Amino acid sequence: MSDSPLPCVDDVLAAAARIAAHARVTPVLRSRTLDALTGATVVFKAEHLQRSGAFKFRGACNAVWALTEAQARRGVVTHSSGNHGAALALAARTRGIACHVVVPEGAVAAKLANIGRHGATLWRCDASIAAREAMCAQVQAETGAILVHPYTDPCVIAGQGTAALELLHASEGLEMMVVPVGGGGLAAGTRLALQAGAPLAELVLAEPLGADDTARSLAAGERRIDFTPHTVCDGLRGTLGAPNFALLQGAAQVITVADEATVAAMRLIWQVLKQVVEPSSAIALAAILAEPARFAGKRVGVVLSGGNVDLDALPWGAV
Amino acid sequence: MSDSPLPCVDDVLAAAARIAAHARVTPVLRSRTLDALTGATVVFKAEHLQRSGAFKFRGACNAVWALTEAQARRGVVTHSSGNHGAALALAARTRGIACHVVVPEGAVAAKLANIGRHGATLWRCDASIAAREAMCAQVQAETGAILVHPYTDPCVIAGQGTAALELLHASEGLEMMVVPVGGGGLAAGTRLALQAGAPLAELVLAEPLGADDTARSLAAGERRIDFTPHTVCDGLRGTLGAPNFALLQGAAQVITVADEATVAAMRLIWQVLKQVVEPSSAIALAAILAEPARFAGKRVGVVLSGGNVDLDALPWGAV
Repeated sequence: MSDSPLPCVDDVLAAAARIAAHARVTPVLRSRTLDALTGATVVFKAEHLQRSGAFKFRGACNAVWALTEAQARRGVVTHSSGNHGAALALAARTRGIACHVVVPEGAVAAKLANIGRHGATLWRCDASIAAREAMCAQVQAETGAILVHPYTDPCVIAGQGTAALELLHASEGLEMMVVPVGGGGLAAGTRLALQAGAPLAELVLAEPLGADDTARSLAAGERRIDFTPHTVCDGLRGTLGAPNFALLQGAAQVITVADEATVAAMRLIWQVLKQVVEPSSAIALAAILAEPARFAGKRVGVVLSGGNVDLDALPWGAV
Repeated sequence: MSDSPLPCVDDVLAAAARIAAHARVTPVLRSRTLDALTGATVVFKAEHLQRSGAFKFRGACNAVWALTEAQARRGVVTHSSGNHGAALALAARTRGIACHVVVPEGAVAAKLANIGRHGATLWRCDASIAAREAMCAQVQAETGAILVHPYTDPCVIAGQGTAALELLHASEGLEMMVVPVGGGGLAAGTRLALQAGAPLAELVLAEPLGADDTARSLAAGERRIDFTPHTVCDGLRGTLGAPNFALLQGAAQVITVADEATVAAMRLIWQVLKQVVEPSSAIALAAILAEPARFAGKRVGVVLSGGNVDLDALPWGAV
């Protein structure tokens, strides 16, 4: 785990400036139907329309452009078969530097194609965390590439916070903010953004019941990371990182959500908002629908985190 | 068929003013990936994000608000189990007047629910065109309601033209405009909008091979409406209307598209743009991909006409 200092509010503001030339200012979506259903005023930040199809591009882009010239020449490396891998590949391309992505056996072909499409070099290894970290270390040693961790890297955390920062600018008076939590990059970044733009707003994290280490960690006052994730939310299977825990402790509440409710919320977003989001995004709306009394009458911001879903394997029953 | 005068450019401008308080100014979407795939610069007008989920609300809203107070008190009626029915129901509700919708046996339950949700009265009849028109006449006689035809009504045609008008304002220098064609309401309205905003731009109509009466009619110089539609594009099974033919004759070209290509384009829009559009919308992109040489290097506007798709019955094979 990194021993870098924790990122702070200023790092989010610096990230916003750094990525402005590369990242999209994604739209904010509203729906009368979903407001009526939730009893709240909900504004959705459409990060599934971010470049590479997820908010992950913000953190990756911030990390890549924060490198010195000398560092950048060495390239970057990460281990992620998901949205961070594709995001880092695209971010590296915006700076014209090399990118290496360690991908485990069994990764979804479509996601690998997405990473390769942006010109990254793929390194295959066994599916275990140990194998992935060993391969990552090997690539670092062989190529000199700099590791950009998917959610503990301070630049990544700060970059992810820019989504909430934009949402706060676009929608005045938000009283609550709901984001999904896996490793905690978006969650921790959002916490910093709220400090900057809406210090009184409540931060609610939506977490799958089958990967509820954040709920358990925050309740216990220390990281509880010994679990085997079991959830349809493939972007939220990671373990809450140490700096993420430090930033979220005492600053966020967690609502855990059953996969069935997440899938129902995903279908609702497709049907009503006409937006293709992945389960790991839809869980935020599912959390609101699961505990409506907490949100009733409030102005609530939601980050729709990504839209990279396998259209051939939709998770609802009838299909 | 109506013997009303044909709508003109001024009617589209009047419609834009009339519906401004009720209809959404839908966003314009872009994609680097789709530009690369098509070899053109394509701007998408996101009418699937229009109220009721389709551009149809524009025409229905214009028709409803063009009524005098005395006419409005009588209510409105139409026969459409699809997007026009739901759009007219919602438009009537914005004016607080009665709406009757004649729906044939066998109509999709989800679409009927959508119509009923907006408070319209549903009248059931046999599926034949004759039965629908007879029932419609009966409702008119019994209730005094005023018929708003889905695509031959001059107010409907003028209202549909406002989508292209907005797109021309939002995106400068469009050289071509591609819209789907069924009954021809959107097509004829778009033709009028181009007269107003881009008189040199080319109008291309995308039509299913299995319902290619517009292609045959424009080629023959007279309406050829004797056919049985066979296409996955349920919004484009109607027959080109007489005023629509009159407005499009000599002013538009048609590209006919096989359903397989339309379904592939729909999948592409879901995957890349992350937008849930129905086959009747996706056919416009399919037309561009089918004849890329005609669009290469051009600035092309596309109206994504609607997003009311049955999520339990997606048309691609693997699902």
